[in-house]
Amino acid sequence: MSIIRGAGAAFDAHFMQIALSLAEKAFSEGAVPVGALIVQDGDVVFQSHNSFTSPPNDLPDSIRHAEIGAIIGACKELGKNRLDGCEIYVTVEPCAMCLGAIELVRISKIVFGAYNSSFVSAQLRNPHVIPTPPFPGEIVGGVMETDCVQIIHRFFQAKRSG
Amino acid sequence: MSIIRGAGAAFDAHFMQIALSLAEKAFSEGAVPVGALIVQDGDVVFQSHNSFTSPPNDLPDSIRHAEIGAIIGACKELGKNRLDGCEIYVTVEPCAMCLGAIELVRISKIVFGAYNSSFVSAQLRNPHVIPTPPFPGEIVGGVMETDCVQIIHRFFQAKRSG
Repeated sequence: MSIIRGAGAAFDAHFMQIALSLAEKAFSEGAVPVGALIVQDGDVVFQSHNSFTSPPNDLPDSIRHAEIGAIIGACKELGKNRLDGCEIYVTVEPCAMCLGAIELVRISKIVFGAYNSSFVSAQLRNPHVIPTPPFPGEIVGGVMETDCVQIIHRFFQAKRSG
Repeated sequence: MSIIRGAGAAFDAHFMQIALSLAEKAFSEGAVPVGALIVQDGDVVFQSHNSFTSPPNDLPDSIRHAEIGAIIGACKELGKNRLDGCEIYVTVEPCAMCLGAIELVRISKIVFGAYNSSFVSAQLRNPHVIPTPPFPGEIVGGVMETDCVQIIHRFFQAKRSG
């Protein structure tokens, strides 16, 4: 698996900006600010953010990551069990669970903002699992990285001082 | 991550036998025969099998693995977001997504039957992702391995000749 550090085509930055606004929504709801969306042929299929209240309510919080919500929503929206040809944009590098799910639904491209290594001290998402599986599609990392890192740091700072 | 090849304590074999009966249920419903259950302090918390019809119906088939169903069900059953101190028994070695989810909910021990390497040619669950992340708990593999492998082979043979 090779991750391209995102020079970030305008296209990628456009969708990452939407993902960031979804992360802000999570922040305002008190959830770890991560946003994700699924895109097909340049159109947004489904948007999702970390949340304690939004669907899919069936899932326990511990595995209800923004990417899983986006995958479930997009599959429903398209009436399919797979998302071949779709892309996922997410503000933070997917954890092993999400990466596995992304691959199982055959998403073709992953674009993420912050590298997980930015949060090692925060042990944000998964302290033990390092996402190492090979992904057959394209992965672009570091798109709008500073913004995607800052919102997370801002969240945990607010938590500590709150 | 070190996997102990299961000498299989009687305890492990007892629960794997239940997992196998769940896999048989999946088989009879036409789904890939994998069964999983969550155990806490020697009691079964939740049983799950691959299915096209059972809950959680919200999830697309492609990610509705038996382990995910078991995790969601057990969290609901216990009214918790995490499953610390619980064990998962599953007839097949978990894929990367399931392994990640197992870790996120803090399951303490994984006991599985068939190694994924038994199905390389069948490309059963996930041809690309190899579950390599380190798991901090105990993993026992190969419990009732022959039965767990055979039911999968039997399923795909029936599919081919059907």
